[in-house]
Amino acid sequence: MYTEECRRTGRRLNAEGLVSGNFGNMSVRADDGYYITATGAFLDEPGELVFVPDDGDVPAAASSEYRVHREIYRLTRHRAIVHAHPPHAIALSYAASSLVPEDSEGILFCPEIPVVEGDPGTEELAARVADGVAHAPAVIARGHGTFAAAETLVHAYLLTSVVEHACRIFWLRRASTPSLQKDKVG
Amino acid sequence: MYTEECRRTGRRLNAEGLVSGNFGNMSVRADDGYYITATGAFLDEPGELVFVPDDGDVPAAASSEYRVHREIYRLTRHRAIVHAHPPHAIALSYAASSLVPEDSEGILFCPEIPVVEGDPGTEELAARVADGVAHAPAVIARGHGTFAAAETLVHAYLLTSVVEHACRIFWLRRASTPSLQKDKVG
Amino acid sequence: MYTEECRRTGRRLNAEGLVSGNFGNMSVRADDGYYITATGAFLDEPGELVFVPDDGDVPAAASSEYRVHREIYRLTRHRAIVHAHPPHAIALSYAASSLVPEDSEGILFCPEIPVVEGDPGTEELAARVADGVAHAPAVIARGHGTFAAAETLVHAYLLTSVVEHACRIFWLRRASTPSLQKDKVG
Amino acid sequence: MYTEECRRTGRRLNAEGLVSGNFGNMSVRADDGYYITATGAFLDEPGELVFVPDDGDVPAAASSEYRVHREIYRLTRHRAIVHAHPPHAIALSYAASSLVPEDSEGILFCPEIPVVEGDPGTEELAARVADGVAHAPAVIARGHGTFAAAETLVHAYLLTSVVEHACRIFWLRRASTPSLQKDKVG
Repeated sequence: MYTEECRRTGRRLNAEGLVSGNFGNMSVRADDGYYITATGAFLDEPGELVFVPDDGDVPAAASSEYRVHREIYRLTRHRAIVHAHPPHAIALSYAASSLVPEDSEGILFCPEIPVVEGDPGTEELAARVADGVAHAPAVIARGHGTFAAAETLVHAYLLTSVVEHACRIFWLRRASTPSLQKDKVG
Repeated sequence: MYTEECRRTGRRLNAEGLVSGNFGNMSVRADDGYYITATGAFLDEPGELVFVPDDGDVPAAASSEYRVHREIYRLTRHRAIVHAHPPHAIALSYAASSLVPEDSEGILFCPEIPVVEGDPGTEELAARVADGVAHAPAVIARGHGTFAAAETLVHAYLLTSVVEHACRIFWLRRASTPSLQKDKVG
Repeated sequence: MYTEECRRTGRRLNAEGLVSGNFGNMSVRADDGYYITATGAFLDEPGELVFVPDDGDVPAAASSEYRVHREIYRLTRHRAIVHAHPPHAIALSYAASSLVPEDSEGILFCPEIPVVEGDPGTEELAARVADGVAHAPAVIARGHGTFAAAETLVHAYLLTSVVEHACRIFWLRRASTPSLQKDKVG
Repeated sequence: MYTEECRRTGRRLNAEGLVSGNFGNMSVRADDGYYITATGAFLDEPGELVFVPDDGDVPAAASSEYRVHREIYRLTRHRAIVHAHPPHAIALSYAASSLVPEDSEGILFCPEIPVVEGDPGTEELAARVADGVAHAPAVIARGHGTFAAAETLVHAYLLTSVVEHACRIFWLRRASTPSLQKDKVG
């Protein structure tokens, strides 16, 4: 279930460089649980998603990041989550405690992007990310990657793209030097 | 109509990183109006374009950027428009009021690239962009993206590529100044 | 043999920018030797791999990097090797004698990435790389590229991706300017 | 003739970001002239190449860069030429009069990469590029792009890839290292 939707989203995540290798994961909310990509799955070739019930054991095949997904669904009304590893967003997470984008998509969709801390796979990270996406559409886990939550997988992917776009612009600007900062250049 | 031409152009815009997600839009002039990509459409999978008549209501399905396209067609003889979100051009828009490219394609096709201001979707932005492309083939809207106008979609895409190429070279050169000189970081 | 596995891995290596042109090579351990990509082969169109016996002559068609592969299989239990040319990792090799990643995948999979020296194709390089991957999953040969060794080609590719990801973050952070280094940015 | 070889080479040039849009051109030597991509052709969809005779008029459909190709074939024994617009190489052309690569492929295939000057389409540029590739496999025309000449199109493309790889590493290092800032680098 949801394999085709994941595969198409995964291909776009890959093509934009928002994930690499088999890193990152995705899930979709269901009535009494959620479907999440399998541990080790390539997002552009996800295979069958793994159902994680709200009550009961977590299947061993589920992504090891299932705690974050579970906590987001518990605390919010979001219906889909994309976790990616965009390099500019991860680099930003070391340099700032949040980013206020200045580009038009950032302003519209992610007016503030919080950076949260916590080790991958822990309840601590799950709690902080879930708290973050209760107030902002996407957060960056320091040194780890983005979590975006929305009504659909496609929207969660688009938020991820917006975050990386804003962070990429941040780094381009930051790398520039004062001595070249004149108003009209060329 | 124009779906296939848009799709091919959209695939190239995507592959070069000139657009990401479902951002950006395109239109083609017709006798008594213009065809524009639908709001939320992915440029590489545009589906049917939406016809916006010169006189009469704007269909709700049209891209929210329709005002800029309308104003460009009103003020100029251009027949096609591409609006993209290239990261180096957007980053440049914060650092300069225009760019005079030094690379051969920039000199040939976009000897000066103005940066204009205005909020997305507003008449103010539409007026400034249309005024810009009346005098230069492509402009950058600050914090938002490029607008390129030409005889065909392909040419508008090529201008977009030229602008981002010039901006990319700008940033490579700008990142290398002496004031950044510290020996060991990270 | 192994052509299809190489081809799929090579396409991912290409798509992520971890190799370019026909550079890089891959091999898989067999009972009494190993299969390696042919000299000059494009990793995404590898054709038949070349069998190099543990005892006996090395076929002329084998990648000129065969000495490193042979030495790794002699000294370790790894079953597959990927040698790639990721630009950020190569650039890092001039700036550091090793990298301790701070991102979550780096910490998990490559807690320390040694940089080793030696000219391509020499026994000296082979000895240093083999010694390196006996203690760390992946090493960077200065000015040359990465060598990652694992149980499968896919895992060796994933390690390569982790190394380049960590090096990319390293360079983003290093290029930033002191004057913009404030905790909360935007 | 040569369409399929061009198309495959063009796709790799595109995928690696060595050309964008419909910029760049390619040619192959024949007995009494050469085949060159048409003016305005996309290198990954080149269509029929245009034959330019050694004696006689140049067809209007030939790439406007035909003078450089003609002069290279007149002065050297090369059989194929690739002209591309790789951004890091172009940016380098403003910062240095030549590049001495330090990476292993650069050292092996392009031990010194000269930067030459001249306006696109002029005899002056043709003379300088041809003189350059008589002594080095590839040169960078300042503000314009690379010219690589070899026995086959594939080899000319590989040289282009080697040049951009070396220039990319140059810019990564320069963005953080003061000691690299001298006119002639390496």
